[in-house]
Amino acid sequence: MRPDRIQILIDALRVLPGVGPKSAQRLAFTLLQNEREGAQTLADAISDALTHLRHCEKCHTLTDQPLCNVCANPKRNDALLCVVQSPMDQLLIEQTMTYNGLYFVLMGKLNPLDGVGPKDIGIDALLKRATDGIVNEVILATHFTNEGELTAHHIAEQLTSRGLQVTRLAKGVPVGSELEQVDLGTLAQAMTGRRGAFS
Amino acid sequence: MRPDRIQILIDALRVLPGVGPKSAQRLAFTLLQNEREGAQTLADAISDALTHLRHCEKCHTLTDQPLCNVCANPKRNDALLCVVQSPMDQLLIEQTMTYNGLYFVLMGKLNPLDGVGPKDIGIDALLKRATDGIVNEVILATHFTNEGELTAHHIAEQLTSRGLQVTRLAKGVPVGSELEQVDLGTLAQAMTGRRGAFS
Repeated sequence: MRPDRIQILIDALRVLPGVGPKSAQRLAFTLLQNEREGAQTLADAISDALTHLRHCEKCHTLTDQPLCNVCANPKRNDALLCVVQSPMDQLLIEQTMTYNGLYFVLMGKLNPLDGVGPKDIGIDALLKRATDGIVNEVILATHFTNEGELTAHHIAEQLTSRGLQVTRLAKGVPVGSELEQVDLGTLAQAMTGRRGAFS
Repeated sequence: MRPDRIQILIDALRVLPGVGPKSAQRLAFTLLQNEREGAQTLADAISDALTHLRHCEKCHTLTDQPLCNVCANPKRNDALLCVVQSPMDQLLIEQTMTYNGLYFVLMGKLNPLDGVGPKDIGIDALLKRATDGIVNEVILATHFTNEGELTAHHIAEQLTSRGLQVTRLAKGVPVGSELEQVDLGTLAQAMTGRRGAFS
């Protein structure tokens, strides 16, 4: 049997999350038959990103510069520091256009069962960064999962003891949801955290 | 604003069918954070396939050799010729392991409304190929859509008038289906085309 470049491409496409053998086949033939130009652009974009992206020296997000666009922007409020679990979470918050402060990007979340401790995800670097004398509020935007909450609690404990104001993203009912679509825990949090209506 | 390699990658991923802005983001960060090695393999596989794949001289499928694996295999039955709409359809039939003949891969299907005629999809080349004196049965495996059926009818007409036996994939109820899951047209075809039970 000769080496088969189509099969190599089909196998390589399996690296994409959620892509099984059948959709990998479909993707491969779409790229080869209908999207040749876009396919080459994609190959170049992947290689180029892998080669040039590194971690921002200040916030640890992915960037192709020593400092990322956010950290290098003098118009951002450097008294606010938002802690996220990943570069993608940072991008999502940027896209809400509700935040004008800086970020600190952890390398994931605490997971004691798997042996992932504070140093492994960069919490020691965060403590140093947050106590620079300029930051006065740290906003915890880790996920609302068990590990994300654990991570938030751990950081909050460390930072409040150092005299910083520590806040957490609001818990509640997602916009557009019917009440029956959310779980009781969320509903309980929404009730406990209720606010003045339309104020 | 500096050029942003992450955004370039996110945009490039949109070439994949079914990938919208949000899943493109998720794919990009997965590749950059958790699958760096697989991502480089994917980029190389795409480039390599685009560079080296061409059409088989005999059946027109995609291959990196002058003749594809099937056409070059002396054990295949060269009296049988299966006509498919695309290289992917050819691969799907190969994977059923029910067919030992050769193929002819059309470049799509007839579509008079869009001005796609017989020459545009290679039917003239098929007629020449099928009348080589060795082929005696042509199996039509175009899709069971309007255009696929039109294409099959057109080819059948041309080939029967040249004295060849022309067959079509069986229509019927898909394996694993309940009857209520198939449309009435399919059920009617399954009734009309009924065969001896378990023979």
